[in-house]
Amino acid sequence: MPCSPLLTDLYELTMLAGYLEEGMADKQAAFDLYFRHNPFEGGYAVFAGLQPALENLEGLRFAEEEIEYLRGLHLFKPGFLDFLKRFRFGGTVIAPPEGSVVFANEPLLTVSGTLAETQLVETMLLNSINFQTLVATKAARVCHAAGEAEVIEFGLRRAQGPDGGVSASRAACIGGAKATSNVLAGMLFDLPVRGTHAHSWVQSFPDELTAFRAYADAFPDSTVLLVDTYDTLKSGLPNALIVARELRQRGHSLRGIRLDSGDLAYLSREARAMLDHAGFPEVRILASNEIDETVVDSIRDEGGRVDIYGVGTKLATASGVGGVALGGVYKLVAIDGQAKMKITSDLAKATLPGVKQVLRAIGPKGEFLQDLVCLDGEAVQSGDKVYDPTNPLHHTHLPLEGRLVDLRRVVMENGHRTGQQETIAAMAGRCRRELALLPQGCRRFVNPHRYKVSISQHLKTLRCTLIEQTTARRKAQ
Amino acid sequence: MPCSPLLTDLYELTMLAGYLEEGMADKQAAFDLYFRHNPFEGGYAVFAGLQPALENLEGLRFAEEEIEYLRGLHLFKPGFLDFLKRFRFGGTVIAPPEGSVVFANEPLLTVSGTLAETQLVETMLLNSINFQTLVATKAARVCHAAGEAEVIEFGLRRAQGPDGGVSASRAACIGGAKATSNVLAGMLFDLPVRGTHAHSWVQSFPDELTAFRAYADAFPDSTVLLVDTYDTLKSGLPNALIVARELRQRGHSLRGIRLDSGDLAYLSREARAMLDHAGFPEVRILASNEIDETVVDSIRDEGGRVDIYGVGTKLATASGVGGVALGGVYKLVAIDGQAKMKITSDLAKATLPGVKQVLRAIGPKGEFLQDLVCLDGEAVQSGDKVYDPTNPLHHTHLPLEGRLVDLRRVVMENGHRTGQQETIAAMAGRCRRELALLPQGCRRFVNPHRYKVSISQHLKTLRCTLIEQTTARRKAQ
Repeated sequence: MPCSPLLTDLYELTMLAGYLEEGMADKQAAFDLYFRHNPFEGGYAVFAGLQPALENLEGLRFAEEEIEYLRGLHLFKPGFLDFLKRFRFGGTVIAPPEGSVVFANEPLLTVSGTLAETQLVETMLLNSINFQTLVATKAARVCHAAGEAEVIEFGLRRAQGPDGGVSASRAACIGGAKATSNVLAGMLFDLPVRGTHAHSWVQSFPDELTAFRAYADAFPDSTVLLVDTYDTLKSGLPNALIVARELRQRGHSLRGIRLDSGDLAYLSREARAMLDHAGFPEVRILASNEIDETVVDSIRDEGGRVDIYGVGTKLATASGVGGVALGGVYKLVAIDGQAKMKITSDLAKATLPGVKQVLRAIGPKGEFLQDLVCLDGEAVQSGDKVYDPTNPLHHTHLPLEGRLVDLRRVVMENGHRTGQQETIAAMAGRCRRELALLPQGCRRFVNPHRYKVSISQHLKTLRCTLIEQTTARRKAQ
Repeated sequence: MPCSPLLTDLYELTMLAGYLEEGMADKQAAFDLYFRHNPFEGGYAVFAGLQPALENLEGLRFAEEEIEYLRGLHLFKPGFLDFLKRFRFGGTVIAPPEGSVVFANEPLLTVSGTLAETQLVETMLLNSINFQTLVATKAARVCHAAGEAEVIEFGLRRAQGPDGGVSASRAACIGGAKATSNVLAGMLFDLPVRGTHAHSWVQSFPDELTAFRAYADAFPDSTVLLVDTYDTLKSGLPNALIVARELRQRGHSLRGIRLDSGDLAYLSREARAMLDHAGFPEVRILASNEIDETVVDSIRDEGGRVDIYGVGTKLATASGVGGVALGGVYKLVAIDGQAKMKITSDLAKATLPGVKQVLRAIGPKGEFLQDLVCLDGEAVQSGDKVYDPTNPLHHTHLPLEGRLVDLRRVVMENGHRTGQQETIAAMAGRCRRELALLPQGCRRFVNPHRYKVSISQHLKTLRCTLIEQTTARRKAQ
């Protein structure tokens, strides 16, 4: 269901009213959506949040009550409100498919159409892409740390609002989580849902064993017992083993146990030994409690025997250094066919002007070599000299071997989505494949290898020319 | 509009199915919702998120498609799904009003009713209260730093999902923000909405002055000009002054200018001097760009002349040390009239058993002296010995002067909301009044004064008894 078009900053509407008044609303414009730094001080990002954004664009309509609300603000003229009543998004969107591995300074979405329609949708697009890309990236990091172990997303209760939870579950599964505890996200996006039980279940019964037996009775083939309500090794594990034997006698089997407090590395080793010794090597160990990629790393470093990580708060809120929010921006790059840029004293914050392509150089084994941002239609060839977008004194060359592929495709044309909608599983598969093709060191958490993203000669020249023109005009004033 | 009852962790549903099977679903239970640490390592929290949560409880219904989705999981028996079809929340909720100043370890919500209904709603309640309380607290901190200056919430584009933005705008206004840029939140919660314009507006015109003039033409009485697209002091400010003069000649006035990059303390001082020198002392200076309470503090320390702070990402995502997520929990405290508790090796994580009251000792001038958690109906008097909930060796006494008031009231009875719904302005007013009644030092950011929250003698005794009983039972096994 598309969200309300009022899910926007007020200034998008006032600017739109201004453009209409100036007779500029129908000028042709193009905006780029991109971010300036990889999240989590990491070596890459996983692109997500596109389909919900496109759904919102396609369904963008102002309802009568929304128009009346805007009228009540006494800010807008009747002509503008009539314009909004008829408003539809009819633009074109170019983007990579979700689950793609992307990098800072690459245009992700390029939105072209009238100045009115491309400006209005800024806030909604940023909201969807910023947050989901961040969570998908976080999930990919946790999964990388987890190695063969599974990651399940458990964060709804501490997510940032209801939809903070739902969007997070979707994005976490794109980035590599195998399932979520969030039932609504499961229904909306066809994600596997999983769960165990709470401490309150155990407390509701006279004792822990009775509680475990009751749960196993109700779900004889999918029981994961939470063993830390009273004492993990002295009470929880022994009681879980009793239930495991009883289930086996009845032709079922205990699925797993969950550790939710204490030293998870130590407890998982002890639990594994107790389970194996009792003849239950198939019972899996799930660990939860404030887990993120660094906690997973340390559990594995210390020989922890965790099969499944239940990752909640820190995944659903994408927390950590360089996390919580992705600083994606949406910048005007062309109007009336003329390239535009925002000039600042800091070249890292200056925009890349014009409508562009993002190309990836791919080696003979499919491995990713480097990316190039060039002007749309610009002819580039292997061996070309290319430049660092934030420091034009640095340059490199496109590789002599391999091929250049376009990272993006038209995903919406004249306001209609093109192509088939993908499943989350397909996006997750793309993410997994692409992460494996990154140069070594890109997935490292500390000081990761910096994947090269360059700009082409023509793009560099265009940027210099525009900066000079602007400076000259300012001095002439 | 209430959210789907599937906005829950799967285990709430499996536990519910288990309780039904065990014939326990109708037992009377009570749960407490509380947090263990004040957010942001601060001295208090601002309670928020209640009304949306109550709305969800009142409207809780499983739709046919939701039942069918659950059937398709092949996890639940038909009897349980029939039970869900008829399910309504008919419980009772006790809580403080929104905007109240609250502290760690105090029960905020107490939810009583059948075990089934009180358990099922855990995830939704936590999701709503955790996030909004966190953002309201962050807003109160930023407003405290800002002093007389106004704070406006600008965070939607980097909020955690669409509703992350909408809930954040609501909570920010409870905590003290004067307005939001989020139009949908403005409509839903009757919040003032505000905005300026983007860099793209300036870029869309041949030059900055033309762009400024066009915006002022469209909104002659509410124009705030963004002055940093090319050069704040050399281009933006001089052009803004031209427009300010033109507006004045036409009987209007420029509302303000916005600084969005660079050294905000320096630029605001310079801008103030230029505006004053040109005869425009009424033009206000708005600063934005990665602002939070520490940035505001440093701008003021350096004599910055900011009248309005536009606070985005860091407010809407409540980021900062001890932020991003509030670790609120929802714990069973009684079943069948018997007090229950979760026992762990760490007393700080052990729950407070039984249905309780939260009382606040208030001094003769209305000032807050200390809070007390005691058993429901327990007689307590001034001068009583009371105990630290996390360290029973520490005790203090209730003050001899002043009065004890109950912090909470019945906000829902048998599934129906009681009393009138408050406006956000009323909640914000309560927040402002209560913050002014805190002991000195509670609002400090670094090492704040620790407001005393104690437990009563009877509650302490009950907790000890339950711990001893459980330990004895475990040893006897």
